[in-house]
Amino acid sequence: MGLNLVYKILKEHLVEGELRGGETIGIKIDQTLTQDSTGTMAYLQLEAMGIDRVKTKRSVAFIDHNMLQQGFENADDHKYIQTVASKYGVLFSKPGNGICHQVFLERFSCPGDTLIGSDSHTPTAGGVGMIAIGAGGLDVALAMGGGAYYITAPKVCKVNLVGKLRSMVSAKDIILEVLRNQTVKGGVGKVYEYAGEGVKYLSVPQRATITNMGAELGATTSIFPSDDKTREFLKAQGRENEWKELAPDADAIYDEEITIDLSTLEALAAKPHSPDNVEEVNKIGKIKVDQVAIGSCTNSSYEDLMKVAKILKGKKVNPEVSLVIAPGSRQVMEMLARNGALGDIISAGARILENSCGPCIGMGQAPGTDAVSLRTFNRNFYGRSGTLSAQVYLVSPETGAVSAIAGYLTDPRELDLDLNIEVPKNFLIDDSMIIKPAECGKEVEVVRGPNIKPFPTNTPLSDEVSGKITIKVEDNITTDHIMPSNSKLLPFRSNIPYLAEYCFNTVDVDFPKRAQENGGGFIIGGQNYGQGSSREHAALAPLYLGIKGVITKSFARIHKANLINNGIIPLVFENESDYDKISLLDELKIEDVKTALTTGEVEVKNVTQNYSFKVKAELSQKDIDVILAGGKLSYTKLMAEKEDKNA
Amino acid sequence: MGLNLVYKILKEHLVEGELRGGETIGIKIDQTLTQDSTGTMAYLQLEAMGIDRVKTKRSVAFIDHNMLQQGFENADDHKYIQTVASKYGVLFSKPGNGICHQVFLERFSCPGDTLIGSDSHTPTAGGVGMIAIGAGGLDVALAMGGGAYYITAPKVCKVNLVGKLRSMVSAKDIILEVLRNQTVKGGVGKVYEYAGEGVKYLSVPQRATITNMGAELGATTSIFPSDDKTREFLKAQGRENEWKELAPDADAIYDEEITIDLSTLEALAAKPHSPDNVEEVNKIGKIKVDQVAIGSCTNSSYEDLMKVAKILKGKKVNPEVSLVIAPGSRQVMEMLARNGALGDIISAGARILENSCGPCIGMGQAPGTDAVSLRTFNRNFYGRSGTLSAQVYLVSPETGAVSAIAGYLTDPRELDLDLNIEVPKNFLIDDSMIIKPAECGKEVEVVRGPNIKPFPTNTPLSDEVSGKITIKVEDNITTDHIMPSNSKLLPFRSNIPYLAEYCFNTVDVDFPKRAQENGGGFIIGGQNYGQGSSREHAALAPLYLGIKGVITKSFARIHKANLINNGIIPLVFENESDYDKISLLDELKIEDVKTALTTGEVEVKNVTQNYSFKVKAELSQKDIDVILAGGKLSYTKLMAEKEDKNA
Repeated sequence: MGLNLVYKILKEHLVEGELRGGETIGIKIDQTLTQDSTGTMAYLQLEAMGIDRVKTKRSVAFIDHNMLQQGFENADDHKYIQTVASKYGVLFSKPGNGICHQVFLERFSCPGDTLIGSDSHTPTAGGVGMIAIGAGGLDVALAMGGGAYYITAPKVCKVNLVGKLRSMVSAKDIILEVLRNQTVKGGVGKVYEYAGEGVKYLSVPQRATITNMGAELGATTSIFPSDDKTREFLKAQGRENEWKELAPDADAIYDEEITIDLSTLEALAAKPHSPDNVEEVNKIGKIKVDQVAIGSCTNSSYEDLMKVAKILKGKKVNPEVSLVIAPGSRQVMEMLARNGALGDIISAGARILENSCGPCIGMGQAPGTDAVSLRTFNRNFYGRSGTLSAQVYLVSPETGAVSAIAGYLTDPRELDLDLNIEVPKNFLIDDSMIIKPAECGKEVEVVRGPNIKPFPTNTPLSDEVSGKITIKVEDNITTDHIMPSNSKLLPFRSNIPYLAEYCFNTVDVDFPKRAQENGGGFIIGGQNYGQGSSREHAALAPLYLGIKGVITKSFARIHKANLINNGIIPLVFENESDYDKISLLDELKIEDVKTALTTGEVEVKNVTQNYSFKVKAELSQKDIDVILAGGKLSYTKLMAEKEDKNA
Repeated sequence: MGLNLVYKILKEHLVEGELRGGETIGIKIDQTLTQDSTGTMAYLQLEAMGIDRVKTKRSVAFIDHNMLQQGFENADDHKYIQTVASKYGVLFSKPGNGICHQVFLERFSCPGDTLIGSDSHTPTAGGVGMIAIGAGGLDVALAMGGGAYYITAPKVCKVNLVGKLRSMVSAKDIILEVLRNQTVKGGVGKVYEYAGEGVKYLSVPQRATITNMGAELGATTSIFPSDDKTREFLKAQGRENEWKELAPDADAIYDEEITIDLSTLEALAAKPHSPDNVEEVNKIGKIKVDQVAIGSCTNSSYEDLMKVAKILKGKKVNPEVSLVIAPGSRQVMEMLARNGALGDIISAGARILENSCGPCIGMGQAPGTDAVSLRTFNRNFYGRSGTLSAQVYLVSPETGAVSAIAGYLTDPRELDLDLNIEVPKNFLIDDSMIIKPAECGKEVEVVRGPNIKPFPTNTPLSDEVSGKITIKVEDNITTDHIMPSNSKLLPFRSNIPYLAEYCFNTVDVDFPKRAQENGGGFIIGGQNYGQGSSREHAALAPLYLGIKGVITKSFARIHKANLINNGIIPLVFENESDYDKISLLDELKIEDVKTALTTGEVEVKNVTQNYSFKVKAELSQKDIDVILAGGKLSYTKLMAEKEDKNA
């Protein structure tokens, strides 16, 4: 019984657990990437690990998100990331070098490698046959520190591609078809493995468009085999040596299979306000268009923009349309400038934006009121464009360019144009904006702007844990209650001390002061404590305030994991009625806590009221080890030291 | 006794007053320009005039300021300006076509013409021998409506240029030298007229750099003669027919004269935080540089960027420096793309920004904390970059480019490079992003986003003016008190109804409600009422609330003019003691007000307290006519109608 490609690569990287669908497995991570909006926290976490240098084969820090730079915070973040990367052995891709996923594909992707990145579109690199997964900043920091990455071994869905795309129909239309078929929830717990004769007609950048937007399926990742097309691409990038052939076994087993006939596929669009709200462009009709935006990690490759340039050449953008184009990388931009295509694009009347994420993440180019905006991006969620009333359609570059000229949504197949773009024999290779780390990291001074504060770390668990109850809250407290996130607080995501002043602000403005005055102590919660977003900050701010444990009626899953990751003990009342008995500022004490956690039966003494009650510690042995170590960072550091000693 | 060039052109355009230094004169305006941040108000005012079509030879609406577009307001403003321009016969330069002053110089400048523009750097066009003056939005609207523009006839300072610039010293260094010599206050009430043998060595774009930054002298404007260099430039722009020779009479008289020896000029920099804080680059020393920004209406011409490209070619930007470059226009951008220079710039590691004002007006690229930023812009006021702690130096493109490579402030003369850039025989001409107005404006529907509200207009003055006192304030009230301007209110500069809700907000939050409930009525002020900024909104918001008159102990000059412009009667207590007698909500009445204004002696009846007091109307006959008409817009409209009837 043969292995599919996903399990072949996972098998090679398995370091913990059993490789069977649904099981938790730990895999070795070869490469990591970060971008700047999540990167500052990831590197603060890396710093807190106390290691000297990253242990991955290759780690790269990109700047591509906060490039409008409306205040000092962004440039400070860039400087921090540049210096911390240099110190710890991470490559630094300067602002202006391009979007992380596009540059990674060009310069660092490697068939058969594993990659995690602190960005949800990290699966882009699946286009060359990598297992590439989006992850939280802490997971990326841990992987940089040499730790395994833990996932649930996925189900694998084979996407069987049949036939060949017709002219003016493109890779974007394939992934839109998959989204229509599978929906935005259809991919949870799955990896999509592309196969079939249709694969060989798709270039690596086309494949990368598909794996990139696989993120919108909710999938763990997506992957293509590594074949001659992959070899050609890597060779043209001067990296043929990194190529190897990768394919599933002939008798590979899959959990599911879907088939897409490329030869009958039409140009598609995802209508407002979901990437799976897909319909044929020619069925939607000729709606008037106000803006066309081409770019993003989904559709900003050399190939994509050459197609756009060919469509625009000798034509003019409709006077009523604002066409904005953000090339994906400096390589793409310079090649277009050198071969005349950029001249053609400018001549048509396009506005050229920086090589960055730009409007895809709402950084500028908000459409006007009620405006129709066609975008080659990956998400058209309500309000994401910056304009609540905007109608955003996700389309291919072909559809975008043709519509920009026409002034209304137009099926690109109406234009009889041969868009056969040859993959260049040699891409223009210039890595001078990728700054190598210092050889001696110790000599590098990390530059921290006033908004970048050290990351709080915990200490190993004591034998006895005691403290006062510094807040007692009701049922269904969300992470938004615990650590509010709004436009006022968002610029401070690298500044836990500042954020901590707003911890529980919507519930009890006195909590931060009370917690600090009482050395942290305990939080008492009701049912479903910590529901909502996954933000790590809902554990980091309490940690900064000294919180040692949280006792609730029940926890939301991700927040519980975040507490464990930060060495805060999550405990559950055995009898919910005990919740009612205890009061704010009661002194609690847990003796011989290490043993208690292992048995799972923990007795808590209410010193103030002089009685005891029972709580449960629903923790795996690894969770306990993490808490004993004072959090996952310390745990990983300990493990690495142990390994060094054994080596 | 011969005329200087300034007075020659003024004489040709004089429609009112005596052409003698210090006298108020009215001049005919041939051309107008607006940009988007001041443009919405100017066009709202134009609409309020009720004319069908602009009466200038040429009026152009540019979009170059709000191009980051973080919310719907910007795209809505662009759409409003595009449609209102089409309706009223104004050319519309689409976002992406370039910075107003650069595009105007390229495509519309015309020796001997007059221009006013709603941007302080309008004097740029003085580089081809125009009288080009920055003005308020209302003045520009009035000029579009056919009205004269009123200025104080200036003193003229001859700037005698001797010799020829050395290699790597440039026009920017000339204007920095003038600033060092004259200071930022030195130009008040003056026009700088450049003359001497040195003129003939300067290209039009170089001259335009000098006239542009003449704004920083506080001058009315600056001007160069129109000569063979001008002819060459216009010919290369396909506009030789618009050229004519312009020079002062041989025996021309000037009020002042300064001489600058170009042959000994060094590369200069304006140090933080003033454009006149000028020193030689090589004396400032080799300070470490974090950012270099090249562009703005001062230094973004084809010639400037070709020099930059030559310097950067084959080199790499220092890893510690962020080099951002915003070309001045689409013409510049496409020419650089076509001839390979843009490739060289990208190859060196520069970040390419849109053709727009960009970081010069604080739209992005805020430096990091304490960062040193070299900028080819025109202003380095404290905080203007968006970062209070930044150290901004104003330099030439040569100094900027050389320093970006070195990583520290560097005298460009250290680089032995021949930068002789030939002015192109033919610029790349493509006006497809300049949208012609509709032939039949009546059919155009002006598109107003929800943030764009109609502009309030007044009605002709009644025989009797009466109303309650709806606010009584103390001495030294500023326009900031009357109409606060902060980041919360700034996006609403096109929305007087919304702004009016905040009128006098820092003094009396109930005023807007009280004024509206009582039909406006009167404002009572103390000494120096309306001091501070010149914002029109401090008259527009009271007008919207129905205010008919303002009675004070004394007025600040500009605010009084703004009141008159909007048909609100400014009156001054004859006996200051009367200020004390009257109370909030007293009913006042002025009978036969038209006669009273003409005599200047006005009796006000306090109906509530049943007594009368005397106030003075210190108004010229024209001021009175404006008030009688219900403001300057209505007045201008009346005059135009009268003219039509006479014609």
